[in-house]
Amino acid sequence: MKVFVVGGSGRVATELIKNLVARGHDVIAGARHPDRIMIDSHVRAVALDLHAEVPEIREIIGKVDAIYFVAGSRGKDLLQTDAFGAVKTMWAAEQNEIHRYLMLSSMSSTEPENWSREGLKQLMDYNVAKFFADNYLIHETTLDYTILQPTSLTEEPATGKISVGTNQVATNPIPDVAETLAELLEAPNTIHQTIAMCSGETPIAEAIKKI
Amino acid sequence: MKVFVVGGSGRVATELIKNLVARGHDVIAGARHPDRIMIDSHVRAVALDLHAEVPEIREIIGKVDAIYFVAGSRGKDLLQTDAFGAVKTMWAAEQNEIHRYLMLSSMSSTEPENWSREGLKQLMDYNVAKFFADNYLIHETTLDYTILQPTSLTEEPATGKISVGTNQVATNPIPDVAETLAELLEAPNTIHQTIAMCSGETPIAEAIKKI
Repeated sequence: MKVFVVGGSGRVATELIKNLVARGHDVIAGARHPDRIMIDSHVRAVALDLHAEVPEIREIIGKVDAIYFVAGSRGKDLLQTDAFGAVKTMWAAEQNEIHRYLMLSSMSSTEPENWSREGLKQLMDYNVAKFFADNYLIHETTLDYTILQPTSLTEEPATGKISVGTNQVATNPIPDVAETLAELLEAPNTIHQTIAMCSGETPIAEAIKKI
Repeated sequence: MKVFVVGGSGRVATELIKNLVARGHDVIAGARHPDRIMIDSHVRAVALDLHAEVPEIREIIGKVDAIYFVAGSRGKDLLQTDAFGAVKTMWAAEQNEIHRYLMLSSMSSTEPENWSREGLKQLMDYNVAKFFADNYLIHETTLDYTILQPTSLTEEPATGKISVGTNQVATNPIPDVAETLAELLEAPNTIHQTIAMCSGETPIAEAIKKI
């Protein structure tokens, strides 16, 4: 498949792209600093600024089979990047007739009633931004979306094992999140699903198959 | 009618409350600093922090006939006040079976394609926050909403005359916006309408009647 990764220079993106290439996919990765995108013969790095208007974003994304949104401003530009930047890529996907859209979200993004919990209440602006993006994706697009909600990301090495459907405050090694994202691409059972995940005991492919 | 004004201490709110009282309504006005709400025998000032959770907001709003959302953080807390704070009051309205909901919004809040215009492009974060609130109100609630989109607010005196349906960058004296909001309350023809306004040549009541 030909896959576009929005926010292609980040920590999760880099691991995700490695996973996608290993599975035989061709990747176009967009980031504000395309020189920070990993180099590989199956990866094309392009400049993408989520402040651009939708027609420009459409043209940059082009005709691909799926879009991953793994961009994040780390709290610096939540409204225009994490929230509305995501919505603009959804509009670009619809207009370019790209159906599959995979969103890297965060714990309880779609469950505001949980945001007062320890570990989430410190991230309130972030929670709100991710809520609006995910909520728009679910209720106001026709996309074949999957939303992945990991808990805190860590730099730990991969375990290859996760737990899905849980909602506890736990951690996720970044490589496990990236592998899970890659696994979701061709898992039709995850279309229109919002999936909470954290480290666990089930091998990733098996955990996804059970959803 | 019994009307709740969210953001009851602001410039528009103060003029709005005067208008509502003059029309014979009883007002409950909620603000973080209720001591800044205007004093009148038909006005009850209550403490309302939009960071509170929905059950608390529900209880503060109580059973009224209509809600006005005229709160704004002036750019300081757009995600939690202007955007998600508004959504929480929509949920409170629905849960308290309050149908009528009047939103003070801003020029082109629902038309991102206009945001690159001069006068709007400087307000991008604000535009995004208002977009998410208004969009939620329109597409994801069952409320009898009216959204008013004035252009820049000024401290000029009232003219009593407006123009509706226009989209030009112009100004609005605050008392005219407040009178327009008050006029909308009992104008059933404005339910489910998003109304652009600026200073104009038509007396306010007449302009609203024509919508």
